[in-house]
Amino acid sequence: MPHLVIYYTANLDRETDMTALCRTLADTMLSIVDEESKPVFPKGGIRVLAFPAAHHAVADGGAAGRAAHTHTGAASGDAGDYAFVYLNLRMGRGRSATVHKNVGDALLLTTQTHFQTLFAQRHIGITLQIDEGQEVFDAKYSNLHPLFNNLNKP
Amino acid sequence: MPHLVIYYTANLDRETDMTALCRTLADTMLSIVDEESKPVFPKGGIRVLAFPAAHHAVADGGAAGRAAHTHTGAASGDAGDYAFVYLNLRMGRGRSATVHKNVGDALLLTTQTHFQTLFAQRHIGITLQIDEGQEVFDAKYSNLHPLFNNLNKP
Amino acid sequence: MPHLVIYYTANLDRETDMTALCRTLADTMLSIVDEESKPVFPKGGIRVLAFPAAHHAVADGGAAGRAAHTHTGAASGDAGDYAFVYLNLRMGRGRSATVHKNVGDALLLTTQTHFQTLFAQRHIGITLQIDEGQEVFDAKYSNLHPLFNNLNKP
Repeated sequence: MPHLVIYYTANLDRETDMTALCRTLADTMLSIVDEESKPVFPKGGIRVLAFPAAHHAVADGGAAGRAAHTHTGAASGDAGDYAFVYLNLRMGRGRSATVHKNVGDALLLTTQTHFQTLFAQRHIGITLQIDEGQEVFDAKYSNLHPLFNNLNKP
Repeated sequence: MPHLVIYYTANLDRETDMTALCRTLADTMLSIVDEESKPVFPKGGIRVLAFPAAHHAVADGGAAGRAAHTHTGAASGDAGDYAFVYLNLRMGRGRSATVHKNVGDALLLTTQTHFQTLFAQRHIGITLQIDEGQEVFDAKYSNLHPLFNNLNKP
Repeated sequence: MPHLVIYYTANLDRETDMTALCRTLADTMLSIVDEESKPVFPKGGIRVLAFPAAHHAVADGGAAGRAAHTHTGAASGDAGDYAFVYLNLRMGRGRSATVHKNVGDALLLTTQTHFQTLFAQRHIGITLQIDEGQEVFDAKYSNLHPLFNNLNKP
């Protein structure tokens, strides 16, 4: 933990670098500290995974976008070809509401910066949510965490 | 919101049009009204995303299906090649139990209608569930909602 | 139900057989019994679906792994090419804490056995969690369950 899973419409793969977004989101999580200036997340536990949908339907399927396009005379692409990105962060229980808000705000800012140019060019909806995991069983099998623990030693 | 995510076994991509299913499910959500005849969902917030699994295992892996096939003499395809579809709708908190049931019933009917022919031809399991999001952070960055708000103005 | 969804970094598809992992995890679920020696899960309801991520970022992106590699002189592959597997089992409500633990332990053992060789060769993190579904609507449309019910009859 934490796990950030991104679902998105596959039309975005032609228009933006989703691997770069994954990396900047992971870097954002690496840098976030709590009220005592300690890292919120263990370095070895940060994972961002992005999945383009093979099939999708968004809103009205494009009618309103194309109608608006006709009215404004805007020119690039198909104004009815909506895009959508859903970012869901699952993190462990027990952090404060302040930490939740700081994490959410930081990830949203990173996401907005990534999509800023595209946002001005096409119809796109982005939603970011954070869930606290309510799991009834949790287990890890990893040689990533020790890697970072070892390196932190003098 | 709402987000309808569909996970399914990839064998279905050869047998049915999953993009069409996404669209009819979105249209179903567009048409659902609450007890006061108002739309349950904001038009710009409706998203359906479908993901075929690259790998899967269902039930016993096909033994019972092939055994039943032998007994009945049914002919088409491999009776041990099970299919599975999981539809998970995540919606915002605060709707009534009646709305949950109406939404679920409507989406199930649309799904059953879509798969009716296939259901008579192959072994398939379909499960539909609705979750109320319990997120601790929620943010949006979208030019889809305003699109519909503008069009609603005279 | 139950549904076991596996998200993983796509680099693993070159190194291990994820379809085989799905099958052994399904077989593990088939064999689990409760305190009264009855099967925990209905045979027709067991589904395992695995999704490789099209894009990902894990931990620091590889720096610590490559640094450790230099120190130890270990040789195979890129030590900064981390892998990650997340297994999430969603099961119905109402089972005991003992059942949750037994299911989790059994699935973890199966997973560890599958990845044992790879674990000794590369950097990889594996997390397994079980959620009890908190759905507000649940419906099924299936000809899989009856298949098993019929076969159980004399």
